[in-house]
Amino acid sequence: MNRMDSMRAAVLTEHGGPEALRLRTDWPRPEPAAGEVLVRVTAAAVNNTDIWTREGAYGLPGDPDAKAGWRGPIAFPRVQGGDIAGVVAGVGRGVDETRIGERVLVDPALYRDETPDAPPVGLLGSEADGGFADYVTVQAARAHDVSGSPLSDAQLAALPVSYGTALGMLERADIGAGEMIVVTGASGGVGLALVQLAAARGAQVIAITSGAKADDVRAAGAAHTVDRAAEDVLGEIRRCSQREVDAVADVAGGPLVAQLMPWVRDGGRWVIAGAVAGPVVDFDLRRLYLHNISLIGSSMHTRRHFDVLVDAARAGSVRPVVAASFPLEDLAAAQAEFRRGQHVGKIVVTLSGGTSGA
Amino acid sequence: MNRMDSMRAAVLTEHGGPEALRLRTDWPRPEPAAGEVLVRVTAAAVNNTDIWTREGAYGLPGDPDAKAGWRGPIAFPRVQGGDIAGVVAGVGRGVDETRIGERVLVDPALYRDETPDAPPVGLLGSEADGGFADYVTVQAARAHDVSGSPLSDAQLAALPVSYGTALGMLERADIGAGEMIVVTGASGGVGLALVQLAAARGAQVIAITSGAKADDVRAAGAAHTVDRAAEDVLGEIRRCSQREVDAVADVAGGPLVAQLMPWVRDGGRWVIAGAVAGPVVDFDLRRLYLHNISLIGSSMHTRRHFDVLVDAARAGSVRPVVAASFPLEDLAAAQAEFRRGQHVGKIVVTLSGGTSGA
Repeated sequence: MNRMDSMRAAVLTEHGGPEALRLRTDWPRPEPAAGEVLVRVTAAAVNNTDIWTREGAYGLPGDPDAKAGWRGPIAFPRVQGGDIAGVVAGVGRGVDETRIGERVLVDPALYRDETPDAPPVGLLGSEADGGFADYVTVQAARAHDVSGSPLSDAQLAALPVSYGTALGMLERADIGAGEMIVVTGASGGVGLALVQLAAARGAQVIAITSGAKADDVRAAGAAHTVDRAAEDVLGEIRRCSQREVDAVADVAGGPLVAQLMPWVRDGGRWVIAGAVAGPVVDFDLRRLYLHNISLIGSSMHTRRHFDVLVDAARAGSVRPVVAASFPLEDLAAAQAEFRRGQHVGKIVVTLSGGTSGA
Repeated sequence: MNRMDSMRAAVLTEHGGPEALRLRTDWPRPEPAAGEVLVRVTAAAVNNTDIWTREGAYGLPGDPDAKAGWRGPIAFPRVQGGDIAGVVAGVGRGVDETRIGERVLVDPALYRDETPDAPPVGLLGSEADGGFADYVTVQAARAHDVSGSPLSDAQLAALPVSYGTALGMLERADIGAGEMIVVTGASGGVGLALVQLAAARGAQVIAITSGAKADDVRAAGAAHTVDRAAEDVLGEIRRCSQREVDAVADVAGGPLVAQLMPWVRDGGRWVIAGAVAGPVVDFDLRRLYLHNISLIGSSMHTRRHFDVLVDAARAGSVRPVVAASFPLEDLAAAQAEFRRGQHVGKIVVTLSGGTSGA
């Protein structure tokens, strides 16, 4: 292989700690197949999904402690990175060559079928190679033209996973204007996106976050914040809401599910997209079926949701907060800072030519 | 009070066993208030809800062992009985007198508000007096004209709670033609209604039931039956379905929730309306949020659902199975037979003039 065809890439060859993700400088640059584009990556954001996939922390059905990605075993070697902004650098057969040079936001989902509401059954960086690399190939239809967007490359890269996931949650739970909702993990990537997007829809957000980040979370649009370390989180929520809440948008899971469920109104919704506080919960089914409450599992977004997000990116009507940016060589440091959790907003890796402004 | 104004009624004055439900012959006959009709009850079906309300088996939020009705404390004394067919015997102010003599099917739900999709927040026999009595008063709009129905009074009385609940489940989970669904408790009141209604929509039903009742459940429309006492219920379901199922319509809850959830497809639905096999379950939230599965609590029906049921009753397109009928004096025996669980179909109390044919 000559040097022209090689590139830098963060490659996973087995499940493990940070050392398992190796930065290679001699990785083969992929060739776009028919219907694909080659994207030169300008920015790629850091997410929990990449870290959990590296660790194999998703378990398997019937074996929660097994090492696996979110869809099952990972085919190694795998280039990680699900959040990609870039520029089209090449096209495969059947794709218009005029797309070369186009600034794009990449939808990281591999969908079950061609319908607009099909669920994702795979993700770039997990079931296919991702964006922690100089180049990535994706289906042409999943690279969305954002040439006119006022957002920086880092801001664009902040959108797909976190804001896509948040939008999917709000849409699946049909959360709208005038509703009183609780958002957990509100200073995290998905949490802050939930606060911004829900407030923009006219919902009143009670955000659960650490005390130190409360000001940032209120700046993002939360009407109230509750310190997650408070002695009586439920009591604090009840004081904020005064009445039963309409919905909960939850990325935390854990004991709060049982504690707060009785404070969700009849016909209310609890939409969940993660369970960092504990995936296995003791659960009283009666609360659900006596009060017409739905517990809605929400994995990422659909094509329909992503189109809404692309429109917002083009218009600049959503302004993701970029907490910090790092060069690809410092991906391990970026993930370490992400894990320390002192930041508010997204941590982004920028590559050659990527803009990191906010 | 003179004898003309008194009636027979099964009255609950405290939570307890069968002895707590006393048959009174001197109970005051209610007067229809403005907007209400007085219904002479012809048939009233037996349901778990009445028995659990008598026992106070619903628990309270945060105190699952507390004695309470499904909505909280019961206001005693209370006439029980949620499933009512009858004839209009009087009208309150503002109700057309020509309704007197009309054969009616009573919607037992007290709705949260006036919208067609409002959830029920009360039930005749629990939050208001019900139909285990010669007379009951209900809002005129909730007594639906079924003058032309080919169904017997007992068959009509079999519909509201069981078939209304089943219809609510199928509608809320959007279960339709071509889907492969599992129905639990398939020989029970709601279960058999689910089998009949789902099969009528073109769904393929895998019914979990006791072996002795399998023939009756298949006759009601199940494509497959699985013995709930089988050593490997999950394995039997997988053999029937060959692929992951689209939805589960569940009245049982218990350990099957965790066992079967991994066999629900991406984007699948688990709709639950009861938990006779155990209300508190250990639950892995990851299965929901990684696969876009919704756990939908379903309590009874909405006005919109009940209208569908009334149309079916008028047309005779649903033919509920009546397992046995008893006079009001033998209500305790009717509930005892219901509890023994050897029957398939509904057990109904018929009153003066009620027809009990199938």
